[in-house]
Amino acid sequence: MADEVILLDVDISLFGMRVRVALAEKGIEYEHKIEDLVNKSQLLLEMNPVHKKIPVLIHNKKPICESLIIVQYIDEMWKDKSPLLPSDPYQRAQARFWADFIDKMVYESGIKIWTTKGEEKETGKKEFIENLKLLEGVLGDKHYFGGEEFGYLDVALITFYSWFYAYEAIGEFSIEQHCPKLIEWAKRCMERESVSKSLADPHEIYDFVLILRKKYGIDQ
Amino acid sequence: MADEVILLDVDISLFGMRVRVALAEKGIEYEHKIEDLVNKSQLLLEMNPVHKKIPVLIHNKKPICESLIIVQYIDEMWKDKSPLLPSDPYQRAQARFWADFIDKMVYESGIKIWTTKGEEKETGKKEFIENLKLLEGVLGDKHYFGGEEFGYLDVALITFYSWFYAYEAIGEFSIEQHCPKLIEWAKRCMERESVSKSLADPHEIYDFVLILRKKYGIDQ
Repeated sequence: MADEVILLDVDISLFGMRVRVALAEKGIEYEHKIEDLVNKSQLLLEMNPVHKKIPVLIHNKKPICESLIIVQYIDEMWKDKSPLLPSDPYQRAQARFWADFIDKMVYESGIKIWTTKGEEKETGKKEFIENLKLLEGVLGDKHYFGGEEFGYLDVALITFYSWFYAYEAIGEFSIEQHCPKLIEWAKRCMERESVSKSLADPHEIYDFVLILRKKYGIDQ
Repeated sequence: MADEVILLDVDISLFGMRVRVALAEKGIEYEHKIEDLVNKSQLLLEMNPVHKKIPVLIHNKKPICESLIIVQYIDEMWKDKSPLLPSDPYQRAQARFWADFIDKMVYESGIKIWTTKGEEKETGKKEFIENLKLLEGVLGDKHYFGGEEFGYLDVALITFYSWFYAYEAIGEFSIEQHCPKLIEWAKRCMERESVSKSLADPHEIYDFVLILRKKYGIDQ
């Protein structure tokens, strides 16, 4: 029986994009179902009754939720092609640590940039840059976070690149000026079809951000 | 060369206790260094410069941070004895999902019970019970969350049991009344020496909570 793989997703989701990149790295065919988050599908509510959030991977009718958990599942389930997690337990723990850091620290400071204004926005920018600088230190002179091979931590971080334009336009700052090596890394990642075809259009993301800021009266 | 294993920890930490349970399950000897969080050691600041938090496991001079990542590391590094994560990738993803749920939902609602008062405390209690009920549903009629064998999700949740007395005393409610099967499970876990000798004294935790509530003027 061929595998049935369905991804419940939203185009501009940082988290959904991670799953797309991982599936593309593994060469897995899947049905891509785009959700309307204002009017969630019955399937989404059934498949992720706890958080009711995308992305959800449905593999042979069974749901897996939370993007980093999904990426690990994909890596363990389809382990013959393009391994993502390092094979060494210590390196694996380090990759998990930094992926968790991205979810907690990079994501939260990024949110501050585009959902606030004034001093709070400035704090968000400062923290965002500090967090990216830490990651730039982890990258060092390596080709990818995974070393010579594109890996788990590359998947976890690269999807933020599609949001950089929105962060920069709203925050009026240049990420490249602070983190030039990280931008070089992002461009290297974008040369991979798995990444370039999975990431959303930065202008579409910026438009979405502008609409939300207007809606919530934070468009200054 | 024998392994050198050091655990930087705080006695009443839910997260530190997880690492103690996992190390005990695996029968690993370690040096237990208790930190004073008001005056953190140079070693802690060096070993976890990003979050500056306990627990940190230092294995042959190399640090691993974040309790769930540490427990996975311990399981992968010492894999011959007492496997904690399920071997099946789908079951493993499910265990990771619920462990993440415990960190995000159970922990956060528990915090609300003892750091707030009035309506906010009542909301915390309600959410805490709802979250535990979901976990009780996941447990079902199984002996442990891991099935017949004590596993990763058991490690992730059982340390909260030592905090139940404080939650109940502050919140003036009975967890057993709402989740009798979960309490039966907790008592089964406590029959394991790995658990009973790793969990902090509930009265010590309650005393700590009372002191903090007084300090922050929330002792009503």
